[in-house]
Amino acid sequence: MSPEYLLGMAATAAFAASGILAALTTRIDLFGAVVVAVVTAVGGGTVRDLILGVPVFWLNDQAWLAVATLTGVLAFSLRGKLNARSNALAYFDAMGVALFGAGALLKSANLGIPLSHSVAMGAVTAIGGGLIRDTLTGRDTLLVSPELYATPIIGGLTLQAFLMHLKWVENQQTLLAGAVAIFVFRGLAIHLNWRMPAVAINRPQ
Amino acid sequence: MSPEYLLGMAATAAFAASGILAALTTRIDLFGAVVVAVVTAVGGGTVRDLILGVPVFWLNDQAWLAVATLTGVLAFSLRGKLNARSNALAYFDAMGVALFGAGALLKSANLGIPLSHSVAMGAVTAIGGGLIRDTLTGRDTLLVSPELYATPIIGGLTLQAFLMHLKWVENQQTLLAGAVAIFVFRGLAIHLNWRMPAVAINRPQ
Amino acid sequence: MSPEYLLGMAATAAFAASGILAALTTRIDLFGAVVVAVVTAVGGGTVRDLILGVPVFWLNDQAWLAVATLTGVLAFSLRGKLNARSNALAYFDAMGVALFGAGALLKSANLGIPLSHSVAMGAVTAIGGGLIRDTLTGRDTLLVSPELYATPIIGGLTLQAFLMHLKWVENQQTLLAGAVAIFVFRGLAIHLNWRMPAVAINRPQ
Repeated sequence: MSPEYLLGMAATAAFAASGILAALTTRIDLFGAVVVAVVTAVGGGTVRDLILGVPVFWLNDQAWLAVATLTGVLAFSLRGKLNARSNALAYFDAMGVALFGAGALLKSANLGIPLSHSVAMGAVTAIGGGLIRDTLTGRDTLLVSPELYATPIIGGLTLQAFLMHLKWVENQQTLLAGAVAIFVFRGLAIHLNWRMPAVAINRPQ
Repeated sequence: MSPEYLLGMAATAAFAASGILAALTTRIDLFGAVVVAVVTAVGGGTVRDLILGVPVFWLNDQAWLAVATLTGVLAFSLRGKLNARSNALAYFDAMGVALFGAGALLKSANLGIPLSHSVAMGAVTAIGGGLIRDTLTGRDTLLVSPELYATPIIGGLTLQAFLMHLKWVENQQTLLAGAVAIFVFRGLAIHLNWRMPAVAINRPQ
Repeated sequence: MSPEYLLGMAATAAFAASGILAALTTRIDLFGAVVVAVVTAVGGGTVRDLILGVPVFWLNDQAWLAVATLTGVLAFSLRGKLNARSNALAYFDAMGVALFGAGALLKSANLGIPLSHSVAMGAVTAIGGGLIRDTLTGRDTLLVSPELYATPIIGGLTLQAFLMHLKWVENQQTLLAGAVAIFVFRGLAIHLNWRMPAVAINRPQ
């Protein structure tokens, strides 16, 4: 198993856990929560593969749904402990976003997509699963949360694309750099409550 | 016309009616309501076909959009009567979910998808159209409603997959068993207000 | 560059601007707002191409993401002025809806899709990007707003399909007629606050 594959599994588990935490704020039961977890875990990558026009990754490999389901059940059973960490959902989301985003950039670039578009594919993949999770569970999307969210993702992906452009190392080796950059930047935003100056204007209608 | 085809049309009509009922809780007009009805009716199956990588079913057969549109107009014109049954939306949704879910499991298995993944495809198809409907009309998704929702779907699909695994009958003949199992289980949950013990924790942020 | 292409770019810019205006009603920052703008601008056309089974348009031509991004940044920097026009979001949305809807009808018909289905493709494309925008930013979708929304879209697309059916002119030449019809009809609905008689019934559960 390649490092990308293992990091993809870690991302799947992290997103599944974030899905359970989101589901637990509603009046959902175990099966419903696991559905939310699985859809969150594979949603972003499904959108990525549909746009890229390649077979959807989890149809051909039973490990993805298995990892998402088992992590979901595990997180559900540990819900009392997870709740103690009030930012647990945001951190699990950050882990999934970092690994899926960097992985999608790599996958797209390897398919010959130009780097600017591969960054866009990374961003869509990173944000897609969380958007479905937040829509299913009736939450505000993290994208519109006051803490920096898109900025760490686009910043880390741009760094990774720049490393690919330099060609100092194999493309595969940029995956970890991009993921770590996103996770550290986003993690600091969560931990230190970093936010841009408010720009909100009054609702226009 | 095969039995699957006719049951698919019944599912389309049921989902279209649920879309009208959801739309009627907003300030929508006839055309808007019919758009909601059609998107609800064909949304889940569209997601199914995109993931499976097969042509989207309604592009090649004009009957689907025609049935969804006509049912939508009919349900709109009968809105006074439908309103009298306070759970009408949930029952129409249950009918569509049962038939589309069981049909998607059959279609996926016939394409050679492993049974565990075919169950997942059934669940995504069953829930997809309703999720789009609830998002468009600003409702909480039924998935996070207090009554059992995912449990009947996954339970019925698992039963159907088990019947396929046993190979006692043709795959086609398991469709009705799965659909009836989902509909009866979900219908009882609506009628008797079955719900899991509450697991909600406080919103973590 | 063909007229369709230039009108598509205008639609992309208009939708991107509407995405920025929607994002500005939340607590979002520049990068988040630009993500919303880009997803709004290319979302409807992405759904269209996935359903049609053709390559996603913006993967093969870097101009689309560039126009969406630059318009997003520009609209963000002009946010003080845009806010002065209280209906600016609705008008930008109307421009994007008109041009994307009419363009999708043309593209679908040119692919040999029957006219009734091409109208449906036009409606899905027109409404898709705005739905994603409104979901991301937690707004009610314009589809369920009290002003006429689906009616102008379906009316204008039906007119355009009828012109195609008559074959008096080349299909390409119906694009502008359809787009103008949608924009004028929808613009009047916004300006004059046209709405259907209320049909809302009480929330059924």
